[in-house]
Amino acid sequence: MSIRIGIIGYGNLGKGVEIAVNAAPDMELAAVFTRRDPASLVIKTPGVPVVAASEIETWKDRIDVMILCGGSATDLPVQTPQYAALFNVVDSFDTHARIPEHYENVDRAAREGGKIGVISCGWDPGMFSLARAYANAILPDGRDYTFWGKGVSQGHSDAIRRVKGVKNARQYTIPVDSALEAVRNGELPELTTRQKHIRECFVVLEEGADAAAVEKEIREMPNYFADYDTIVHFISEEELLRDHSSLPHGGIVFRSGSTGVNKEHKHIIEYSLKLDSNPEFTTSVLAACARAAFRMYQEGQSGCRTMLDIPPAYLSEKSGEELRAHLL
Amino acid sequence: MSIRIGIIGYGNLGKGVEIAVNAAPDMELAAVFTRRDPASLVIKTPGVPVVAASEIETWKDRIDVMILCGGSATDLPVQTPQYAALFNVVDSFDTHARIPEHYENVDRAAREGGKIGVISCGWDPGMFSLARAYANAILPDGRDYTFWGKGVSQGHSDAIRRVKGVKNARQYTIPVDSALEAVRNGELPELTTRQKHIRECFVVLEEGADAAAVEKEIREMPNYFADYDTIVHFISEEELLRDHSSLPHGGIVFRSGSTGVNKEHKHIIEYSLKLDSNPEFTTSVLAACARAAFRMYQEGQSGCRTMLDIPPAYLSEKSGEELRAHLL
Repeated sequence: MSIRIGIIGYGNLGKGVEIAVNAAPDMELAAVFTRRDPASLVIKTPGVPVVAASEIETWKDRIDVMILCGGSATDLPVQTPQYAALFNVVDSFDTHARIPEHYENVDRAAREGGKIGVISCGWDPGMFSLARAYANAILPDGRDYTFWGKGVSQGHSDAIRRVKGVKNARQYTIPVDSALEAVRNGELPELTTRQKHIRECFVVLEEGADAAAVEKEIREMPNYFADYDTIVHFISEEELLRDHSSLPHGGIVFRSGSTGVNKEHKHIIEYSLKLDSNPEFTTSVLAACARAAFRMYQEGQSGCRTMLDIPPAYLSEKSGEELRAHLL
Repeated sequence: MSIRIGIIGYGNLGKGVEIAVNAAPDMELAAVFTRRDPASLVIKTPGVPVVAASEIETWKDRIDVMILCGGSATDLPVQTPQYAALFNVVDSFDTHARIPEHYENVDRAAREGGKIGVISCGWDPGMFSLARAYANAILPDGRDYTFWGKGVSQGHSDAIRRVKGVKNARQYTIPVDSALEAVRNGELPELTTRQKHIRECFVVLEEGADAAAVEKEIREMPNYFADYDTIVHFISEEELLRDHSSLPHGGIVFRSGSTGVNKEHKHIIEYSLKLDSNPEFTTSVLAACARAAFRMYQEGQSGCRTMLDIPPAYLSEKSGEELRAHLL
């Protein structure tokens, strides 16, 4: 029997979950829920209903795990606790500072409903969190470094688009090579924000806009660009759409630690991702976490979980015997 | 209350566990058990008893987790099931092909004794198994690559030492750069044994030995060297001891996979270790697994586990709240 998956929200994440669920041998897409007019939405999987969000409750017995594909700013803080009372749920909540609060809210709702809620699945938080947690447990004496990119930051691209005179923009976050090199050499460098990442911006101006003024405003924007070396390129909208319309991302988590009676042995653990599609990789993680949520629920567990709480084998469609024989 | 750790066997692994346990804030070394004359063994930790292996049973109530530091060829297949009936145990059993059988033996004994046995902890099997299992669960459509080195292979060094005319030897396993490059580029190469690794040997000859004959015998040795490009250097014993007495190792696990409606998006996951001391890194993993074993035991669980069955948070001395606030 397949695990019946529901998707709430059909943006980049929802579409990615659809692909991941269809690629999984043990899952089937049961329905897509939307706040838009269901009749206006055409999904890729034939025969799967698109349902109004207002009818979600009536699907209580027809969905094993609901994957929430809304945003972390306003959707998930409300939706995940709300639906965790009714369904096993999985989300990609990624506002790091608010995870403890989100965890408590989802935990309460999921316990009351006797369901499992897995939050903050994806790559950061998610796979990068796992890399950090494992490496810290193994090398207690050491230092963590996380680099992002090369990849598109949608938040920074949006920030540029809000600048007066900007028609469209794409921003790439790029790790600084010399910083990576120093970390890989076990030098345990102290790195400022500027020393870790470069920000490269491709900007399309509106007609008659003042390029120098736009560039200055971008470079000096607090939080987003002021603390970085920022490169601004002005290009045509045609070039932007042709060369910069995909959403690659990735990054590297390092732990540089030491062991030995006199801490004389250095060890470097490096976990790296190079992703052509940020949303499709994220949703591949969400689908694997949905499988784990279903297994924990079947065991009678309830409450909130993160990937740090999930036995790795639960994410795999393979049996324990297969994993031990072929992957261990 | 600290987790009371016992060590069985005091070779490279036993010494490494001692260091790791002393570095852990929540563990204490309770005793070291040896098949040698206990009086002949001086350990590094003051005040900790060295006890004859024959007296292990009398320590049943004074040890929370026993870490087995014997070899995979003959020690662990016997010892781990034997002691799993009496203690929570952790081992580094690394004969991949025999893991399923070892698992069954330890599982039976541990269930009967109401204890936890965690087997095959270390980096391969261990951290590399985790890297493979996570990456396979996330990217079901893809391909795995495991490279070892640059590092000392003790099995290959021993094989060279058995050649007539060889006094001493050290063998380094080295990944082939062009193969790493092809995998990193997402080319999904088919790689032969020879295309993946080079074997570099540093050999000290006995007086009067025939260098050409020794080199030929090494190069043509089946299983160990015949399928590889092998480099043989003859050096003095002084040079060997000066330049080649440490035990560095490491390696890289890749998964190269794709997602998308038409599999149009490539993703590369890379997990890499660069270790100054193979035994000390392995034993750092063993210590973290001992912590997890104790937690599972405290929950009332019993039976055999591998790292694939352990929630990552159980390996850390930090609480769930701390992990969520700082590492997630």
